Amino acid sequence: MASFREFSRTESWGSEAWKALCKVRETTPLVQCITNFVSMDIMANSLLAAGASPAMVHAIEEILEFTSLSSALCINIGTLSPDWIFSMKAAAIRANECQKPWVLDPVGVGATRFRTEKCIELINLKPCVIRGNASEIMAVVGASIAPTKGVDSTRSSTDALEAAKELARAAQTVVAVSGAVDLVTDGKRVLGVSNGVALMQRITATGCAVTALIAAFVSVNPNRVLESTAIALALFGLAGELGAEKASGPASLRMHLIDALHMLDEASVMNRVRIAQL
Amino acid sequence: MASFREFSRTESWGSEAWKALCKVRETTPLVQCITNFVSMDIMANSLLAAGASPAMVHAIEEILEFTSLSSALCINIGTLSPDWIFSMKAAAIRANECQKPWVLDPVGVGATRFRTEKCIELINLKPCVIRGNASEIMAVVGASIAPTKGVDSTRSSTDALEAAKELARAAQTVVAVSGAVDLVTDGKRVLGVSNGVALMQRITATGCAVTALIAAFVSVNPNRVLESTAIALALFGLAGELGAEKASGPASLRMHLIDALHMLDEASVMNRVRIAQL
Amino acid sequence: MASFREFSRTESWGSEAWKALCKVRETTPLVQCITNFVSMDIMANSLLAAGASPAMVHAIEEILEFTSLSSALCINIGTLSPDWIFSMKAAAIRANECQKPWVLDPVGVGATRFRTEKCIELINLKPCVIRGNASEIMAVVGASIAPTKGVDSTRSSTDALEAAKELARAAQTVVAVSGAVDLVTDGKRVLGVSNGVALMQRITATGCAVTALIAAFVSVNPNRVLESTAIALALFGLAGELGAEKASGPASLRMHLIDALHMLDEASVMNRVRIAQL
Repeated sequence: MASFREFSRTESWGSEAWKALCKVRETTPLVQCITNFVSMDIMANSLLAAGASPAMVHAIEEILEFTSLSSALCINIGTLSPDWIFSMKAAAIRANECQKPWVLDPVGVGATRFRTEKCIELINLKPCVIRGNASEIMAVVGASIAPTKGVDSTRSSTDALEAAKELARAAQTVVAVSGAVDLVTDGKRVLGVSNGVALMQRITATGCAVTALIAAFVSVNPNRVLESTAIALALFGLAGELGAEKASGPASLRMHLIDALHMLDEASVMNRVRIAQL
Repeated sequence: MASFREFSRTESWGSEAWKALCKVRETTPLVQCITNFVSMDIMANSLLAAGASPAMVHAIEEILEFTSLSSALCINIGTLSPDWIFSMKAAAIRANECQKPWVLDPVGVGATRFRTEKCIELINLKPCVIRGNASEIMAVVGASIAPTKGVDSTRSSTDALEAAKELARAAQTVVAVSGAVDLVTDGKRVLGVSNGVALMQRITATGCAVTALIAAFVSVNPNRVLESTAIALALFGLAGELGAEKASGPASLRMHLIDALHMLDEASVMNRVRIAQL
Repeated sequence: MASFREFSRTESWGSEAWKALCKVRETTPLVQCITNFVSMDIMANSLLAAGASPAMVHAIEEILEFTSLSSALCINIGTLSPDWIFSMKAAAIRANECQKPWVLDPVGVGATRFRTEKCIELINLKPCVIRGNASEIMAVVGASIAPTKGVDSTRSSTDALEAAKELARAAQTVVAVSGAVDLVTDGKRVLGVSNGVALMQRITATGCAVTALIAAFVSVNPNRVLESTAIALALFGLAGELGAEKASGPASLRMHLIDALHMLDEASVMNRVRIAQL
């Protein structure tokens, strides 16, 4: 594990993060989200606050055309059902055909056989990033025997690092494990992100929202998937830290986090993004 | 009706409520919610703020396994459709098999024949608690000839007390009627809860959210269904009172309510929970 | 285009707006919403804050009865799918049969052939108001060759004025085009509304929410469709202006906007509603 010092300010990460945020704001990437019902409001508002343009479109009749128009695709299996899974797969295939990045949030995978099976089928369609909590990532690789409890993590992210690397190599993708320190790996390199506050876990769908941000950030720097994933996690976490300075509970944190994401300035990003190669 | 004095502080109710809240926070019961689309965000955030773990899972393919994993089940018919009703019934049956408590929120029952019919079918699957407003409870028992107007109550909760008792006896369940004073009955005993502020009615889905809290609280004290229902109503109402001290309208009340629910401390609960046997 | 001075206070518009708001608050019109998943929370809360009663009901089994009970109907195609479109059409037909006003929000029309086709089919069912952004209105009339980018406007509202007039005449409806200045036309007369702040565009589904408010306001003054549409836009925009005085980003603006809508008083409405005949 990285010591705390290793997350100290490094000009290069702050600078890359700021440039990436400016690029999102300037180009307003259109992020198609096929996501769970609980997450839609915070996901759309987080994308807007970051400068991207959200579009929740799930009808199979629209996938062929709409996914082609989109800059990136975010698939989240939280409230999955067979018809939505069908659209998710069609969209993932279309995104690949159009060389648009797509990211997967395997919410609650491991809780039921159906969910696990559908998640594996989606991973076989080659997402460029998979982001989950430690339990979810471990469930995906079968590293965990115990089923996940609901949608919250019962494992630490470091426990899941080996599983994440294994998954990244097997699926040829980037895997992000959210936790006190977020871990991002392509199977070889590992980045750690230590932005964020614990109270964010008491707001529903913050994990879902940051996965959508990852889609936006990867779309503007498609050759820097590992780095863009870490940057999206860091900026969302930083917005959480800034929001926490004003918050007095999870609901006010949610509000201040989104405000802070919208207002992020160069000084905050340069000084407070905490990413380190582990 | 109880006079206002009867709701004055009683050490025993405050103490039971505080112990129940601590138990929810310590055991983080997993509450499966098959609920309307409007309510999902506030329901998930209210459960998290109370210390429980929400999971919105409705696919029939997952019910058998997921309902078994859950600590409790909350069914809400707000935006019902035939496929969701099918899953609701399967989940209710599974909850009964696994001896997990399930609660029903009969949103808008009485407005259409379909809604009323499906609601009655669900009640035949033996929920341990039914929570609605006065119009809804009266519609369920056929005590009301006039159809409900939308999803807001047009009757006072005291009008519905006799209907509630009748329903509780017929369905062998606990019935809660929300209103200026919430009434909770098992057909014999009646508890009144006078926490809450009127402005909460101008926030969508607060009733739905408190029904999910009832599921969480019953799950940690399954032998005290009547009392747990009253306690969940009282704590949510108390959070509304505390939130109202800082709010300047319904949207800020919503935020401060959830913050207050998360921050509830022993002194507030002991001194301000207002439950009385009527 | 109207000069800024033309939007200065005119006693008559302020007075009509205040009377309309009082009428909504007194009669609490029941607005049935068949709308996209992203918008449901803010739409329900906006209707409640304005004094109306929201009901999200989409099951085909309920349409015949429920649309008859409702005061108005709001149809929004944001997250459309074939089964929902089927219910939308049934509800539109039923609303017409019962002489209840129905309004259409053609979210993202032009983005896919399916969406455009279904939107045109809905317009053939004679909504009394269509509200969209400039790109959407231009897509509807085929005035735009470029597909819309996501759900945000890429055209100014004035560009769309001619398209709006054409659509209003062809469909015998009122068309509202949201923008820095909202334009409302019945094909002959044109009203401009200059209330609102730019930051509202960074909150998801504010456009959807104001379309539902239009339904509420038209329902209480069914012979003043053009004026009621402008008034709903003006009052929502005014709430945004008042909210912006306290906000420090899009999420706090959302909260303060809804609070302000709930608290709107005669002085603010009389002095600050900015509607002008163009």
